[in-house]
Amino acid sequence: MFDAEKFIKESIDQIKEQVEGRALIAFSGGVDSTVCAALVNKAIGNNLIAVHVDTGFMRKNESKDVEKLMEKMNLNYRFVDSSQEFFNDLKGVVDPEKKRKIIGEKFIRVFEKVAKKEGIKSLVQGTIAPDWIESGDSLRDTIKSHHNVGGLPDKMDLTLVEPLRDLYKDEVRKVARALKLEVAERQPFPGPGLAVRIIGEATKERAEIVREACFIVESEIEEAVKEGKMEMPWQYFAVLLPVKSVGVHGDRRVHGDVITVRAVESIDAMTCAFSKIPNEILDKISTRITNSLKEKVNRVVYDITNKPPGTVEWE
Amino acid sequence: MFDAEKFIKESIDQIKEQVEGRALIAFSGGVDSTVCAALVNKAIGNNLIAVHVDTGFMRKNESKDVEKLMEKMNLNYRFVDSSQEFFNDLKGVVDPEKKRKIIGEKFIRVFEKVAKKEGIKSLVQGTIAPDWIESGDSLRDTIKSHHNVGGLPDKMDLTLVEPLRDLYKDEVRKVARALKLEVAERQPFPGPGLAVRIIGEATKERAEIVREACFIVESEIEEAVKEGKMEMPWQYFAVLLPVKSVGVHGDRRVHGDVITVRAVESIDAMTCAFSKIPNEILDKISTRITNSLKEKVNRVVYDITNKPPGTVEWE
Repeated sequence: MFDAEKFIKESIDQIKEQVEGRALIAFSGGVDSTVCAALVNKAIGNNLIAVHVDTGFMRKNESKDVEKLMEKMNLNYRFVDSSQEFFNDLKGVVDPEKKRKIIGEKFIRVFEKVAKKEGIKSLVQGTIAPDWIESGDSLRDTIKSHHNVGGLPDKMDLTLVEPLRDLYKDEVRKVARALKLEVAERQPFPGPGLAVRIIGEATKERAEIVREACFIVESEIEEAVKEGKMEMPWQYFAVLLPVKSVGVHGDRRVHGDVITVRAVESIDAMTCAFSKIPNEILDKISTRITNSLKEKVNRVVYDITNKPPGTVEWE
Repeated sequence: MFDAEKFIKESIDQIKEQVEGRALIAFSGGVDSTVCAALVNKAIGNNLIAVHVDTGFMRKNESKDVEKLMEKMNLNYRFVDSSQEFFNDLKGVVDPEKKRKIIGEKFIRVFEKVAKKEGIKSLVQGTIAPDWIESGDSLRDTIKSHHNVGGLPDKMDLTLVEPLRDLYKDEVRKVARALKLEVAERQPFPGPGLAVRIIGEATKERAEIVREACFIVESEIEEAVKEGKMEMPWQYFAVLLPVKSVGVHGDRRVHGDVITVRAVESIDAMTCAFSKIPNEILDKISTRITNSLKEKVNRVVYDITNKPPGTVEWE
């Protein structure tokens, strides 16, 4: 049985030993980075600098909420809006691996800039066990470059500190609860953000479409859960496909974008079942998406794939 | 109220007047062409030649079944396998309108060949009202070239006979029942066949994938209906998307194809609601598709779009 209190104590001691001088953490507001920041903050206080980067691929209102959270946690933080740089670097890129690599590199470049300015020696990352297990070790395949692993360029000037490296997601949540962090029940969000939920080119315009669709999926599902109409899924979001399909708009036939709704149940993220969302909720989500994004999206599908054979995210 | 018996009587008289010499009908086995063939057969007997073309985009076992049906209806028929020619003509073509045009033209060329050989003067087509209403008249948009309308090249050497031109789908079904045709309850199937259910390039390999997926969707839904688990949808089928998504296969990450399941309720095909298929049936369909097409398909989605704003078919 995993002992969160014991883990926290040992972890803080270890971090104190590991970190020299000032450390930097990329603070996304997700469970992993929040737990990580809280632990390191307990270990080295203001010597930890939390940096939140608005990549342009954050969820609706997310960057604002993250800023509030960093304040509440008494973190020594910096807020950087690099969205336009990310969009520029991703222009014309459709290959999923290339996208992840570019985003990973860009992240590091932004952090290195802060690191240089602040005289930082260590980089804290919220990598957890499934991240590097799925990214491949000697025995496994290395097709996917995971956002917390493969995105890291080889020539990095910082020491890597990964306090959650041996934990599974449910254990990270236990630590979060033990630390009384309010994000404990928050759904996981991938490092490259909405960029991996935009299949094909990740432009500013397409980011806005998937951001609004994600927001609708989250709101409707959270409301349905509150009303007792369904169980809270492990993860739930929208994916924008690079496919046009035909639709009707008044008397006209128009070609529009396709949004996929994805929601899964899981214990450990290694296997998942698609959430059995009641049909009336799916209908409500679909109608709200096509109404809100009228000139752009005219078709909504629901992902009914378990893992295996599908993954939770699409790329 | 529509009077099927009266329509049949008047229609036969009109066909006798309209058709000179021998007529030809493209016999797909769908409700429209079957009703059409039955009417014209009653009017001119063996002077009607029913031609079934295996385009390579027919459903599983469909061409064989159609041949049996033509025999049972005592039609004077010809069976032509042109699948390889269709695949050749569609090589590299991804634009939906272009695909329809090419298929329509090819159809006509195949029929013209038979027509020339058989000394035929008239072409019978099962066009119904929504076909030409949706294809646009003077007041409407003409974006879509419908399979029974826009596919026809201008320089056609045959006289066009369209006995069902003023009917809606439910009226065609009434006529079918009045004629005691066993296809009466059969779901509609588009003229270009599975080609419009292969978004992107319609190759032989991709036709085989969508054919198997369509077969699974049909079998599972029909079984669920028989077991009283759901209502029979108006139309239900699979669509192959030109999108790869990531999946897991043993320890490996693999990129596979995405299949969309589409099922709708409708009265007249002008407006539709997506079918509220029970989640356990969707789960069964999804698992069977990814198991049967293991090396190819690793993700299945369910289309939750009503019409409007989406159409029933995707292109």
